Amino acid sequence: MTATVRASLFQGPQFSGEVRANLDAIAGAAERAADAGASILVTPEMSATGYDIGDLVDVRAEPADGPIYESFSSIARTTGVAIVYGYPESADGGIYNSVQVVDADGTSVARYRKTHLFGDLDRGHFLAGNDLVVQFDIGGITCGLLTCYDVEFPEAVRAHSDSGTQWLIVPTGLMMPFDIVATHVVPARAYESQLFIAYVNRCGRESDLEYCGLTCAIAPDGSELARAGRVQESILVDIDTATLLESRTVNTHLDDRRPDLYTAHGRGRS
Amino acid sequence: MTATVRASLFQGPQFSGEVRANLDAIAGAAERAADAGASILVTPEMSATGYDIGDLVDVRAEPADGPIYESFSSIARTTGVAIVYGYPESADGGIYNSVQVVDADGTSVARYRKTHLFGDLDRGHFLAGNDLVVQFDIGGITCGLLTCYDVEFPEAVRAHSDSGTQWLIVPTGLMMPFDIVATHVVPARAYESQLFIAYVNRCGRESDLEYCGLTCAIAPDGSELARAGRVQESILVDIDTATLLESRTVNTHLDDRRPDLYTAHGRGRS
Repeated sequence: MTATVRASLFQGPQFSGEVRANLDAIAGAAERAADAGASILVTPEMSATGYDIGDLVDVRAEPADGPIYESFSSIARTTGVAIVYGYPESADGGIYNSVQVVDADGTSVARYRKTHLFGDLDRGHFLAGNDLVVQFDIGGITCGLLTCYDVEFPEAVRAHSDSGTQWLIVPTGLMMPFDIVATHVVPARAYESQLFIAYVNRCGRESDLEYCGLTCAIAPDGSELARAGRVQESILVDIDTATLLESRTVNTHLDDRRPDLYTAHGRGRS
Repeated sequence: MTATVRASLFQGPQFSGEVRANLDAIAGAAERAADAGASILVTPEMSATGYDIGDLVDVRAEPADGPIYESFSSIARTTGVAIVYGYPESADGGIYNSVQVVDADGTSVARYRKTHLFGDLDRGHFLAGNDLVVQFDIGGITCGLLTCYDVEFPEAVRAHSDSGTQWLIVPTGLMMPFDIVATHVVPARAYESQLFIAYVNRCGRESDLEYCGLTCAIAPDGSELARAGRVQESILVDIDTATLLESRTVNTHLDDRRPDLYTAHGRGRS
């Protein structure tokens, strides 16, 4: 049995710190996604609030079932499109850099807390998540979630393919001069760990950052299925598990590993 | 203390099964490398014999200190250039797909046996090596060796950076349609594991294979220092550990890993 899902990847919105404006922009993107026959809309890291918002993180943070969730739940029910969004999550006496997924019924089906924090931008505001593999199902496809810097670690993507993830969804806030992550590292990850990846970035300027854009959908053979430019836009992609099965017959990396050799060297530094 | 080494990467020779012709071509490349001020010449996988030579592997295989070694030792002494070459090595009642390094004095300073065998091409002829991290020093730079398919496994490159490799040298025989390894995967490896990589490929046709060429030298920030086309040529590159130190202050992936999270998932399949 194979499955196909049409997705819309929204490279936007761009309202720094303004939740209402971001929600409205995402609602519009969800309507267009529905019109295009998509069953899921993916938005960037911290899409509800903006990412480089300094101490506003503390002000905008809310629990996973707070008003931001209620708004996305409503947009999803209205449009019939599942939504992947990012927000600062209040929990455990601190704040996580979180991604949540609401299905077309408006129900939360997955929540992931960024595990690899990036520099002062993240460490100055967020706790690190400790659950690496978070998955959900859409249309019969096993999806996984990572956030931005997480995907630069091959170990994180390996953990997903070893856990059965077929389509890895990565909201991100990649900034200049790190184009190489969008153009080279993400295709390499898809190829080496044999899964689909949607890497959905912010665009434009925010505070001191200039985001790279270059949102992309990559097939398990590393080829580009869709690629955005530098400015706000949505791109459509069909994720088809038949393609995944075919790729894994040719690209046998997962079976060709030598775990007997990695144990002596492959540890991280303490 | 930083160190600089000039290297010549020889995308050739192309004589399938003809050892004498390959040795002559490599001797010429070593002379040109010396003239250009290079202290080391890197040649592709199985550069002494050809790679897709079928059962000729059994005929051309010889011990690590056999006539092929003696010839390279002589070329190195004559030109004053260290040489990295590939050959089928007779040992342990079988044959390994091996790479050997002779220094400018003609002495063997490292020998690596390919650990990740690629499809029937490798499995039909070779034993798999079991020593993942083989290193040597040139001009104060810690070099490591992998062969072709090995570098497609991020675990193998991690093992090198965890063991102190600064410059990873990868003789290869990459064939169509796998350009993505040369163009995307190798730059991703250099970036994610923060080391230099020289990926030195065969070119032209051999038996049923068309090699990709696209030999490259990649800096630790993932940028291209040098890139060959599809046909026989040598490219020069200066490897400078100052660049490595600078990159590692910006790109802190090695320190930002979460080994506490990988243990539960990151195992290879048995």
